[in-house]
Amino acid sequence: VRVGVDIGGTKTHAVAIDGTGRPVHQVLAGTGSGAAAVLAAAVDTVTRLAEDCGMPTWQFESIGVGIPGTVDVASGRVANAVNLKIDELELGGELSLRLGSPVHVENDVNAAAFGAFRLLSGTLGGDSMAYLNLGTGLAAGLVLHGELWRGARGGAGEIGHIPVDPNGPRCSCGQRGCLETVASGSAIAREWPTGHPRPVQELFQAAAAGKHRAIEVKRRLVRNVASAARLLVLTMDVETVVFGGGISSLGEPLLEAVREVFADWAADSPFLASLDLPGRVAVLPDEFPAAAVGAALVGGTVSEVL
Amino acid sequence: VRVGVDIGGTKTHAVAIDGTGRPVHQVLAGTGSGAAAVLAAAVDTVTRLAEDCGMPTWQFESIGVGIPGTVDVASGRVANAVNLKIDELELGGELSLRLGSPVHVENDVNAAAFGAFRLLSGTLGGDSMAYLNLGTGLAAGLVLHGELWRGARGGAGEIGHIPVDPNGPRCSCGQRGCLETVASGSAIAREWPTGHPRPVQELFQAAAAGKHRAIEVKRRLVRNVASAARLLVLTMDVETVVFGGGISSLGEPLLEAVREVFADWAADSPFLASLDLPGRVAVLPDEFPAAAVGAALVGGTVSEVL
Repeated sequence: VRVGVDIGGTKTHAVAIDGTGRPVHQVLAGTGSGAAAVLAAAVDTVTRLAEDCGMPTWQFESIGVGIPGTVDVASGRVANAVNLKIDELELGGELSLRLGSPVHVENDVNAAAFGAFRLLSGTLGGDSMAYLNLGTGLAAGLVLHGELWRGARGGAGEIGHIPVDPNGPRCSCGQRGCLETVASGSAIAREWPTGHPRPVQELFQAAAAGKHRAIEVKRRLVRNVASAARLLVLTMDVETVVFGGGISSLGEPLLEAVREVFADWAADSPFLASLDLPGRVAVLPDEFPAAAVGAALVGGTVSEVL
Repeated sequence: VRVGVDIGGTKTHAVAIDGTGRPVHQVLAGTGSGAAAVLAAAVDTVTRLAEDCGMPTWQFESIGVGIPGTVDVASGRVANAVNLKIDELELGGELSLRLGSPVHVENDVNAAAFGAFRLLSGTLGGDSMAYLNLGTGLAAGLVLHGELWRGARGGAGEIGHIPVDPNGPRCSCGQRGCLETVASGSAIAREWPTGHPRPVQELFQAAAAGKHRAIEVKRRLVRNVASAARLLVLTMDVETVVFGGGISSLGEPLLEAVREVFADWAADSPFLASLDLPGRVAVLPDEFPAAAVGAALVGGTVSEVL
């Protein structure tokens, strides 16, 4: 039994997977803020999983954790996990101590990329994939030759901070008009403010109902999501781009809308048409715990028990 | 002795390298158009190299060829080499027959990327690099974990066809405002027409002499080249971006101008500042035959003698 933990801004989600990578037990807990609360939630969920599995935590084959922020996978240290109010934390070491077992730490988008690849590579084919996380922010995780490509300094896939509109809104990173500001949940929050728990669903419904402003906001959003996928294929030539994160909960209607944009572009560009972009996008199945499963499966150095 | 041949639009350049990767003999010939002329130029240069080396061509340790267009490295087939007027050619097989030795075929930008990596990785450090070819067109070659990443379908690094300006000029690919139209020799040809044999040198000289139009054209060009480098670092997190191609013949003045743009951006963005972009760009030494050396060195499947 391998265990993966996805530490998110509001929830911590732990899964136990069997030899085929299928989740056999799952546990949820609230996360809270700061190092102590984050560690407590992770220990709590893994301990409850151990009870469900009928074995002590140190008997798990492996334990992996996905967390937002800058992760040094070799040391298990995480930094700049802003939403969790963590400046720096020896997450791997601290959890290893508490759980009696080595713990591998991975950036959450990278973990989700690896989970998505393991889930979908059989159906989609190829040994390369970009996972495009469309949440409040926008970032990609890259799988090449079937392995995570984390980059020279752990920063691969930060395409959310590529400026695409010189007149766009100021981004949290300090630049202007970053892809993240126009193709993520924050773009919807700015252009289509709503109290709905799933704002993008509400936006698509309003557009389907013929509301002009919603049609316009949706059109821009979809075009920018399509641009992000095009950028990933042109730069990396990954076989597939898989959408995940909050916006991907739209499922097929998102794919259809993005494919319409691709078709428009292909009509003007034989080159783009030759790339077959419509056949190279997919969406993560709703509710599949990709980051937790990926954290359980991903290889690499584990931090030693201190 | 390994041999590499760079088949360009006007010249074919062959080199023989020793065990350290240093060119020991070099031969140049005009290329001509069409399959027959291209094959003749390649055979001619390799045969002359063999004379220089005092051995028959079939005794070379390996022969590699870099050529523009879509290359299938497994079969040695090249397609869409537009400048050479070649629709499709079994380049590897045809050359193997004529030279009595297996011939590996590689896209010329990928070959140059590998040559640049082998030349510079010792000084620059890291096992990842993007080679950004700033010629008439714009494309990148990617080296990850010390190996070429060609992409799932051989199309990695086609960043020249990422649109960056919705109001920009129509690109040869059919899209509008592609990076290639604003950050390459074709941008200079459009915005600063000149009969000078090295237009970018003339542009920089005119800007240095205070000509307003030249200052403006140079400013835009350099900003767009800097954008291309930022895109490569944000997407791939390669350790270094190395500039090559005609524009890179500017050398240090190009690097200085690009670094100024990076510094401006970093002043507004702590995130960009943290990436240390100024320390991660380099320029290929002028006249270093990167594509020919890379073609000689690059691994991978060679097409068998027919």
